[in-house]
Amino acid sequence: MDNDLSLYNVRTDLALEARELAGGPQIPGVWSEAEENEGISVDRMQIQNPLAAQRIGKMIGNYVTLDVPLLRKGDTDLQDRVATTFAREFEAFLQRVGVQPMGSVLVVGLGNWNVTPDALGPLVVENLMVTRHYFELMPGQVAPGYRPVSAVAPGVMGTTGMESSDIVQGIVQQVRPDLVIIIDALASRDLTRVNTSIQIADTGIHPGSGIGNKRKGLTRETLGVPCIAIGVPTVTYASNIVNNTMDMLIAHLQKETPNTQPLFGVFGGMGETQRLQLVKEVLNPLGHDLLVTPKEVDKFMEDMANIIASGLNAALHEAVDSSNVAAYTH
Amino acid sequence: MDNDLSLYNVRTDLALEARELAGGPQIPGVWSEAEENEGISVDRMQIQNPLAAQRIGKMIGNYVTLDVPLLRKGDTDLQDRVATTFAREFEAFLQRVGVQPMGSVLVVGLGNWNVTPDALGPLVVENLMVTRHYFELMPGQVAPGYRPVSAVAPGVMGTTGMESSDIVQGIVQQVRPDLVIIIDALASRDLTRVNTSIQIADTGIHPGSGIGNKRKGLTRETLGVPCIAIGVPTVTYASNIVNNTMDMLIAHLQKETPNTQPLFGVFGGMGETQRLQLVKEVLNPLGHDLLVTPKEVDKFMEDMANIIASGLNAALHEAVDSSNVAAYTH
Amino acid sequence: MDNDLSLYNVRTDLALEARELAGGPQIPGVWSEAEENEGISVDRMQIQNPLAAQRIGKMIGNYVTLDVPLLRKGDTDLQDRVATTFAREFEAFLQRVGVQPMGSVLVVGLGNWNVTPDALGPLVVENLMVTRHYFELMPGQVAPGYRPVSAVAPGVMGTTGMESSDIVQGIVQQVRPDLVIIIDALASRDLTRVNTSIQIADTGIHPGSGIGNKRKGLTRETLGVPCIAIGVPTVTYASNIVNNTMDMLIAHLQKETPNTQPLFGVFGGMGETQRLQLVKEVLNPLGHDLLVTPKEVDKFMEDMANIIASGLNAALHEAVDSSNVAAYTH
Amino acid sequence: MDNDLSLYNVRTDLALEARELAGGPQIPGVWSEAEENEGISVDRMQIQNPLAAQRIGKMIGNYVTLDVPLLRKGDTDLQDRVATTFAREFEAFLQRVGVQPMGSVLVVGLGNWNVTPDALGPLVVENLMVTRHYFELMPGQVAPGYRPVSAVAPGVMGTTGMESSDIVQGIVQQVRPDLVIIIDALASRDLTRVNTSIQIADTGIHPGSGIGNKRKGLTRETLGVPCIAIGVPTVTYASNIVNNTMDMLIAHLQKETPNTQPLFGVFGGMGETQRLQLVKEVLNPLGHDLLVTPKEVDKFMEDMANIIASGLNAALHEAVDSSNVAAYTH
Repeated sequence: MDNDLSLYNVRTDLALEARELAGGPQIPGVWSEAEENEGISVDRMQIQNPLAAQRIGKMIGNYVTLDVPLLRKGDTDLQDRVATTFAREFEAFLQRVGVQPMGSVLVVGLGNWNVTPDALGPLVVENLMVTRHYFELMPGQVAPGYRPVSAVAPGVMGTTGMESSDIVQGIVQQVRPDLVIIIDALASRDLTRVNTSIQIADTGIHPGSGIGNKRKGLTRETLGVPCIAIGVPTVTYASNIVNNTMDMLIAHLQKETPNTQPLFGVFGGMGETQRLQLVKEVLNPLGHDLLVTPKEVDKFMEDMANIIASGLNAALHEAVDSSNVAAYTH
Repeated sequence: MDNDLSLYNVRTDLALEARELAGGPQIPGVWSEAEENEGISVDRMQIQNPLAAQRIGKMIGNYVTLDVPLLRKGDTDLQDRVATTFAREFEAFLQRVGVQPMGSVLVVGLGNWNVTPDALGPLVVENLMVTRHYFELMPGQVAPGYRPVSAVAPGVMGTTGMESSDIVQGIVQQVRPDLVIIIDALASRDLTRVNTSIQIADTGIHPGSGIGNKRKGLTRETLGVPCIAIGVPTVTYASNIVNNTMDMLIAHLQKETPNTQPLFGVFGGMGETQRLQLVKEVLNPLGHDLLVTPKEVDKFMEDMANIIASGLNAALHEAVDSSNVAAYTH
Repeated sequence: MDNDLSLYNVRTDLALEARELAGGPQIPGVWSEAEENEGISVDRMQIQNPLAAQRIGKMIGNYVTLDVPLLRKGDTDLQDRVATTFAREFEAFLQRVGVQPMGSVLVVGLGNWNVTPDALGPLVVENLMVTRHYFELMPGQVAPGYRPVSAVAPGVMGTTGMESSDIVQGIVQQVRPDLVIIIDALASRDLTRVNTSIQIADTGIHPGSGIGNKRKGLTRETLGVPCIAIGVPTVTYASNIVNNTMDMLIAHLQKETPNTQPLFGVFGGMGETQRLQLVKEVLNPLGHDLLVTPKEVDKFMEDMANIIASGLNAALHEAVDSSNVAAYTH
Repeated sequence: MDNDLSLYNVRTDLALEARELAGGPQIPGVWSEAEENEGISVDRMQIQNPLAAQRIGKMIGNYVTLDVPLLRKGDTDLQDRVATTFAREFEAFLQRVGVQPMGSVLVVGLGNWNVTPDALGPLVVENLMVTRHYFELMPGQVAPGYRPVSAVAPGVMGTTGMESSDIVQGIVQQVRPDLVIIIDALASRDLTRVNTSIQIADTGIHPGSGIGNKRKGLTRETLGVPCIAIGVPTVTYASNIVNNTMDMLIAHLQKETPNTQPLFGVFGGMGETQRLQLVKEVLNPLGHDLLVTPKEVDKFMEDMANIIASGLNAALHEAVDSSNVAAYTH
């Protein structure tokens, strides 16, 4: 059971997927609600106690996941609506963690500039409206409706020689923000969620999360201030693609032939976890269980970074109207 | 049958894979030989008559494929050896198409700068040693051992509004090279070949090849001069990953349990083509049969572009020694 | 005199500056008018006969120069107004050269991606709305108000081994546009015009123009179709900075002390050309007469490319409204 | 006098230039020596007491300046020799500040990725060999001859909202290196030094240094560990170009005509400082006293970053031989 949990942890960074793997929304100690509006699904979940946390393999806390299946089509109207929805959900997190309207915020963009599917954090930071220096250099003269926002992309261990968490901890101790927002690219267990979902969580980032080497946690415990994490799945394992597709295939044929035993034999009757392990057993030793990303990754990352930066600008500054958020990024 | 062939065409741009799908190296009208040397496999094939061409779904001509399974490890020694092997095989093509040592060459890098897995051509062009202008501006004064080489990255239809083939044809008519070399990113049907294989062919590029919209051919017929194509698979379809993995899984278990009927049912007994079609039938309508590429695509593309540019520099210029080819690129 | 003219040619690619050097707007055979509107100056000039052309050192034809001294401030409202003014002036050129509303256009972005002050052409091409392929692939189905526009950035001789003009001529012969628009970075003789001026001319590009090696002309004569050139000064020579500043200094002090002889001696009494030659005589042998560009060149180039791309989109397509041109670029 | 000093501070970040402005190498309390070897000049200087420091306008400490007038020619052999010379001079600084062979080092690359002439620091960091994480993750298993090196490019205040010095102080407190090396782009008062000089100083970085907004100091006092600064002039003011050129012109003519009074009047007889102020008085109110950089800035920055990264790799790690330093960067 523990092994399985750790397996899931490796496989998905999304609490929504982990909940489904653990048995769906009926798990005791898990509250959730879902709504859908013109192509944007919002799932809100609370993991309420240690038992539920253990069962799902995610920390106690609040999670919101936006699923927008058509996001990869490049429709700018849809992108604007996603940014607005994201801003509204994010504002609820700001209230939940108790940050005041003028409370200062440090945005941390994890990941590697030079690895396109890992560049979400740096791309968001580049598009963000930073204001803290105006408050420092001209106190009392900043227009109303803005709060002090700073931002940093600390790089990855392979290029800095330091854990991102060490860099962030040092900066937090020096700059003393009231809130830290962490942005990171994630691994999903479902190719269809890659670059179409956004997760917000008030749990921070835990060891093993993210698609790179970010081993120490970035949490309220380690940083001393509230910590909201924003994650977007940008890669999935080849083995997940195989497993999910076989699931779909079996479910698809089951509609016509309820007994799939003759069609898929023992394999068809396996649980999802068992089947995934079998697939991994074949792919892993051959070095074929690669993390993959869609061919159009450059465009998808750029669009997603714009959505998140626009949404954050609107959520963090009252003077930025959620109807025109897109104008505030490049 | 025709349908199946067109299916294969969509699925793989590699003649080696198409040959395997069509029944392996024993097909009449197909000559081939293979060798392996310290991690570098070389497969040389000749499609000799129209019947063989139809059966395989590739043009009559010569094909050489380098397979280097460990190429994605980033070992610079191995990369240098691949560049040297590539240069040697490419020189054989130069002799085969009858280009003289001083014959002029135009290198065409197809693809899109801004789509990382499609940027192979532009990246090679950027690293290539171009010399034609020295011959034009200072005739008779260029050091011996060099030939006139020019290079262009014509862009893709989505950003130019023109077919690449129209741009290349226009340039060829103006500049009149003795040989055109075309470099393009390809789709493989096997994730394990993505960024580990290089194909050289004296057939040029045909409609439907390449991973983007390059619909007209670039061949000796359309350009009026010999045409050598260099291709590297950089993407594969999700459905190929599923299909190949299930093949491996069934073959793997067959070693222990020769009769896989109980294990995999009817599905396990299907031919590869039939199974692939089933997988596609499920994924396609959901828009889930994405082209995917490994997460480390940026680094893999850079390494591969360096190998090909180094190899071409050595093969095209006698003064560039194949032992130190790497020094001539960035 | 001839020598002086060739000197001016090297010094400035702007007809406006050449006219001032040749004696101002009163030169026989030169018609000109100027207007200024909220920070945007527009100078329209016609060089009407060979004598005037020789005296100014520019071809017979029409020239419009926009001067916007505050453009480097990064004010987006001003940028939008410049794009609108540019579109209006460019539309007059379209009528002048007799291109019909549905006439096809090829936009050529000269220059080098990897040399920031020379990247204007490629940057404009990247931001341009290209439509020709829709007309080719779906004739009769394109929405009204658009014309066929294609675009190419041919690169520079140092990286292609070919003259840009050869590449463009080849493409023009293949694609047969009704009009060619050429975009290039220029050298100004005045640092204050660098990245604040835009020149439009119906003369095409002549040998010696542009800041790189583009030696053959791109004109109606060589291409067989009308040819409009758009140029932006992005560099100036160190010697020009010295000369202009000394001019300003002497003029400045002359206001107070009409006789500057005691203050500046013989040097102060020299004509501008003589003084420039003296400065060049000192700087050139030391290799110090560098072409320079402002420190903020990256941002200035991006802004200018957006202005020109927006303006062209509005001028070329009736369906693109000049009030919202900015929305059509990245 | 104080005003003049502050003027010089704005004008040059190079101690060598400040010393010349203050009267040359004979200033009491200043020790210096110079040597020249095949095109590479090395000037070593010690500012020994507060009086000398005040007179020159630079901190007490050791300064080494490499001047390589032909460095912009792109000669790779010369670049390798400069890297080797730089490594040797830098090793002397390591000994001087008392860092042990295994002492840990944090390299800080100041500046802005997106402003080419300000990108020196980030470019060096990208090319540096970082090793600290190997010592952390596999203590005792790192090959001999390496020391723990980490590196960070903290960004600029305009994009982070934080002073670089705050970010660096935070990281230093967390990571506790034995030495901090700071790399920054500088302003020279002489265009001929732009991208041809490298300054090393054991004084750290002081307010007002650097070409951007890095207002707080990065010194042994603020960071608590020794601090070596490496600076390269990449820009100069237009007024400096005018002033230097007039100096050269007057000196040039003085060889033939010792009395330049008739030639240049009062202006020719002015001291350099007075003349510079006059030039600034004319240019400044017009907004024309721009910081400028050579047209080829992209290539110059890349070359310089490679030289410094190669030199640092060789100086910091005994296992990296100064004869093959170039192989360790991209």
